Amino acid sequence: MIYITRRERFNAAHRLFRDDFTDKQNLEVFGKCSNPNWHGHNYELFITVKGEIDEKTGFVVNLKVLSKIIRNYVINKIDHKNINIEVDFMQGKLASTENLAVGIWHEIKHHITELGVNLHCVKVMESENNYVEYFGT
Amino acid sequence: MIYITRRERFNAAHRLFRDDFTDKQNLEVFGKCSNPNWHGHNYELFITVKGEIDEKTGFVVNLKVLSKIIRNYVINKIDHKNINIEVDFMQGKLASTENLAVGIWHEIKHHITELGVNLHCVKVMESENNYVEYFGT
Amino acid sequence: MIYITRRERFNAAHRLFRDDFTDKQNLEVFGKCSNPNWHGHNYELFITVKGEIDEKTGFVVNLKVLSKIIRNYVINKIDHKNINIEVDFMQGKLASTENLAVGIWHEIKHHITELGVNLHCVKVMESENNYVEYFGT
Amino acid sequence: MIYITRRERFNAAHRLFRDDFTDKQNLEVFGKCSNPNWHGHNYELFITVKGEIDEKTGFVVNLKVLSKIIRNYVINKIDHKNINIEVDFMQGKLASTENLAVGIWHEIKHHITELGVNLHCVKVMESENNYVEYFGT
Amino acid sequence: MIYITRRERFNAAHRLFRDDFTDKQNLEVFGKCSNPNWHGHNYELFITVKGEIDEKTGFVVNLKVLSKIIRNYVINKIDHKNINIEVDFMQGKLASTENLAVGIWHEIKHHITELGVNLHCVKVMESENNYVEYFGT
Amino acid sequence: MIYITRRERFNAAHRLFRDDFTDKQNLEVFGKCSNPNWHGHNYELFITVKGEIDEKTGFVVNLKVLSKIIRNYVINKIDHKNINIEVDFMQGKLASTENLAVGIWHEIKHHITELGVNLHCVKVMESENNYVEYFGT
Repeated sequence: MIYITRRERFNAAHRLFRDDFTDKQNLEVFGKCSNPNWHGHNYELFITVKGEIDEKTGFVVNLKVLSKIIRNYVINKIDHKNINIEVDFMQGKLASTENLAVGIWHEIKHHITELGVNLHCVKVMESENNYVEYFGT
Repeated sequence: MIYITRRERFNAAHRLFRDDFTDKQNLEVFGKCSNPNWHGHNYELFITVKGEIDEKTGFVVNLKVLSKIIRNYVINKIDHKNINIEVDFMQGKLASTENLAVGIWHEIKHHITELGVNLHCVKVMESENNYVEYFGT
Repeated sequence: MIYITRRERFNAAHRLFRDDFTDKQNLEVFGKCSNPNWHGHNYELFITVKGEIDEKTGFVVNLKVLSKIIRNYVINKIDHKNINIEVDFMQGKLASTENLAVGIWHEIKHHITELGVNLHCVKVMESENNYVEYFGT
Repeated sequence: MIYITRRERFNAAHRLFRDDFTDKQNLEVFGKCSNPNWHGHNYELFITVKGEIDEKTGFVVNLKVLSKIIRNYVINKIDHKNINIEVDFMQGKLASTENLAVGIWHEIKHHITELGVNLHCVKVMESENNYVEYFGT
Repeated sequence: MIYITRRERFNAAHRLFRDDFTDKQNLEVFGKCSNPNWHGHNYELFITVKGEIDEKTGFVVNLKVLSKIIRNYVINKIDHKNINIEVDFMQGKLASTENLAVGIWHEIKHHITELGVNLHCVKVMESENNYVEYFGT
Repeated sequence: MIYITRRERFNAAHRLFRDDFTDKQNLEVFGKCSNPNWHGHNYELFITVKGEIDEKTGFVVNLKVLSKIIRNYVINKIDHKNINIEVDFMQGKLASTENLAVGIWHEIKHHITELGVNLHCVKVMESENNYVEYFGT
């Protein structure tokens, strides 16, 4: 088993809040991240897959194919977008980095499996100080 | 003369568009950055000042003081905010990185001068691939 | 289970040496790090916790709370300090990056558990070339 | 158990191709990486070992010793070299990052074990977007 | 006047040597960089242009246009290539970072000027420790 | 004219204080940096020289030679040392980043000139947020 990771980047607007909270409650729980006029980030996304090395190519997976999957099913949906409003797989969820990582996992899991390898980790880096890793259930 | 630079960071939402453009025109000129639902960035701000070394302290300027100025007059106004809607010194301007650098220059120039040093450069980094530098007129 | 990591930074002086070694022995074992007049580093500290996502907030843990714990129990004790002389949880121990990671683990473990999540990893980066990770016993 | 990682760097030329493929086939499978005139990278190599902390030194392993092993058995063989032509442990293999990580594992495993610690991971970073991790079989 | 910089990346093989030097002379002058079997790097290229802000767009120059020029006239010619053999604008020159920066300047100068702005600097970063800047004559 | 920069790194202990200040005064002016038990940093040093490209080598200056000068006259004196106590060229000066940059300039200026090129800039980076640049008088 060997692990290979591809980084892709996107930037997006988001806001952390609950409809059933007052503005004051949202501010208490989510701080500046609850700003009603949005804020945003340059996110870094690291997708790690694991598998055996294909003797014919020396690859676990062709990174061009992996990159295409990430771009088709994640980046194109989220880059330069508003996560709360425009990203289908985040509808009805709080736009936290945690939910984003889980959401991305479910978006690409199936397509990674079809390549004959396993999705190992989705890592979402929101800033140089904060990141989330999800390894599935 | 010696130059000293302080980095501060902020993240914000913005959108590039003109009111007098149709959506199609905005898309042509500003691309994905014209998304009406906003997007955002982790910005890095580098403020460079120049001056003589004060023999008593070994400093051109006390970085705690410089940092406080940057935070009071820039970061507090823009961090976790919407640049188009909420930042006073960007009202009536296109929210480009260029205009942001010039706007920040004018916000802090006067306060830097009061420290007895000169503002040399405002550098705004929008992503790892793009940055703008303004040295005044 | 999902993992979230917070980075905090500190800088400190330290020295690697044993009282029961001669200067020559200390130099042999610890090299330049045994310099009796100290040297220092900009350390980066990465604290990773794991837990379930709270449906109400979308968080595993509120990063403001996590950051406050790290600052109260680690950063405030060690930042701009001498690790050998001034840091209570390093007394009687060699000031190696390994012992630092273990020491920090024991300082914060209890406070992390009280948040209802598990401390997963303490990573201490001493330079761009060297880092240590501790996952508990 | 505690984990310590040492980064070393090298740069090298390589090419991805199969002798039994036509140029067209190589281009299809390996893309620009199949260029017959070579291309190259600044590789970053992260070697992670695990073990107990030696009470006498505070070290899992002396990083000077670890660094020397990596340099003797890997860096000196590959730095400023052509991976396909000049690196003994890569002969007869496709010069992929995956094979490189496995090859480096086998080059140093034995020497790490002799230090009384375990080799945990070989990570090879080919670019800021791509890296491979091997943890042994 | 305001300055804006776009980063693009490429990787390539090269070799430093003179035909009229013996192998021993090449080794003396160029060290490991004279390896006859090539070596390579991940290069980072920073193109800085200067101009006035266009009031209509808020831009000095549209970065999509600038990026396209850099890719058409530099990256497509050099990425995944052998600088000594395959890059037209480096023919007959030593493949040093200095000559590369000057060569790239002349490749794009004319196209930048046509955008109505001035090329200010070509910066080529060969490794995290070495870079060259050329500002024209 | 072309500019080439070499980065070297060192780590050191230091303290900012005046003998003729009380502890309270030192704390007021220098903050945590006045800690009597020292603290320290991983410093990054960028030396930029300018000159013409030597047609015979393609170099402004051979980076191995430049690196050797920096190491002989700066790094060997300061790495893993106490700047206040052990660094000859800092004696009698406040150990600020500003004075360090000027001190390093005078240490190497003469040796750079002897190479037939000009020292252009000494940049000392104390942390990811603070750096100083000195271009001579």
